[in-house]
Amino acid sequence: MTNILNSIYLDKNIPIPLYYQVKKQILLLIENAQLKEGDLLPPENDLCEALNVSRPTIRQAFSELVNEGYLTRYKGKGTFVSKPRVQDKFFSKLETFHEEMEAQGLNPVTKVLKLEKINGPHEANEKLSIPISGPLLYLSRVRSVDKVPLVYVETFLPYDLCSKLMSVDFCENSLYDSLEKVYQRRVDRVLREFMAVNAHQREAELLQISRNKAIILVKTVAFSGNTAFEFSIARYRGDMNLFNVELFR
Amino acid sequence: MTNILNSIYLDKNIPIPLYYQVKKQILLLIENAQLKEGDLLPPENDLCEALNVSRPTIRQAFSELVNEGYLTRYKGKGTFVSKPRVQDKFFSKLETFHEEMEAQGLNPVTKVLKLEKINGPHEANEKLSIPISGPLLYLSRVRSVDKVPLVYVETFLPYDLCSKLMSVDFCENSLYDSLEKVYQRRVDRVLREFMAVNAHQREAELLQISRNKAIILVKTVAFSGNTAFEFSIARYRGDMNLFNVELFR
Repeated sequence: MTNILNSIYLDKNIPIPLYYQVKKQILLLIENAQLKEGDLLPPENDLCEALNVSRPTIRQAFSELVNEGYLTRYKGKGTFVSKPRVQDKFFSKLETFHEEMEAQGLNPVTKVLKLEKINGPHEANEKLSIPISGPLLYLSRVRSVDKVPLVYVETFLPYDLCSKLMSVDFCENSLYDSLEKVYQRRVDRVLREFMAVNAHQREAELLQISRNKAIILVKTVAFSGNTAFEFSIARYRGDMNLFNVELFR
Repeated sequence: MTNILNSIYLDKNIPIPLYYQVKKQILLLIENAQLKEGDLLPPENDLCEALNVSRPTIRQAFSELVNEGYLTRYKGKGTFVSKPRVQDKFFSKLETFHEEMEAQGLNPVTKVLKLEKINGPHEANEKLSIPISGPLLYLSRVRSVDKVPLVYVETFLPYDLCSKLMSVDFCENSLYDSLEKVYQRRVDRVLREFMAVNAHQREAELLQISRNKAIILVKTVAFSGNTAFEFSIARYRGDMNLFNVELFR
């Protein structure tokens, strides 16, 4: 780690509050990669002494950076530089996870947990407008960037319309691309609903977060023409995803 | 409360699982208002006996209804009918909170906590593209429906452009309407970013939820033409808000 004590310069003659100068200089070090993900920051006391400022000054700078997700505190261990959140256009543009991550220069990895023929849950049959007795193709995946899981997705498809997808390797192929290649069906509309929930044990394990951490749960129904082809339940890590939307009127 | 034991009829001769029949009938009772918000359901054991089904059957029906937000369990007290989530188009349509709630036939109430001239936070000055020394008009509100707080919003406006709004009663008037009336500025574009976070103490108190409950934090910058007029930080209760988006390609 860079010795950040030498990189921070405070100007006490300008009308910008000292805590804000400390905060901005730490942000700059993060942006310039002089401070990198996982780096430990010096203890607050050391910073106070080195910069000749009060404890509340350092505490406010740290506290805002923690709240904004740039730093993370671990009890008894210290304050570390966080992994930056991934910017998602998931709610403003219909594109695949791969396309979206690659557009940001990130390297997405998909792990397939299950790909099988199942019956139920009935919610899926309803959303797909197929009888409750109708079988489903079930696909569950964890999608990561730089070995950090961002989202756990469970996908349900009408088995009778999609059975050939059982032989697709979904580590390497996107679902929407496969639907186009194998069935010439293009997903052209999705309905998404989302809410914030606290992670249950299993979700937390798959996303490598603690139980009860906030996540965004998204339910999607995807259509090709008037046919519902996909119902999915995606769980996004709250601390790793930032979603963007632009609206006009 | 209706005696729901008399209203549930199960058909053991059809291929629909019993737990699912129980679940659907409870949902129907909620939809028909035979079961209302706050109603206590009979203990699982009583339902098992009355309907002559196994404990896991009832447990699965309850558990899915809890997961989907229709029922809430309170330890030592029992299982109650939840307040339904409010449907938000906040991310798909630019309209005011009042317009949105009224379109759903709901009766929104706004409580103004603060309306004052302040300096900082600097993030607001940055988002509004005004100097760090520039004063801000600060407005904080809690917005409720049926006495349940849905969202806590802190709004920052450039004071020099908006000082006349200090005399507006924001319990009765929407911010965007006031900007139009007083300044003839119409908000025509917003940028929103959002994430899931765990509620801090103060947010939890204002939203009447427990600390650490999942909330959706939304930051908005609103523009009229090229001028940023508003920066806001809104915190939505996770258990009371369901957001909808429709996307095409």
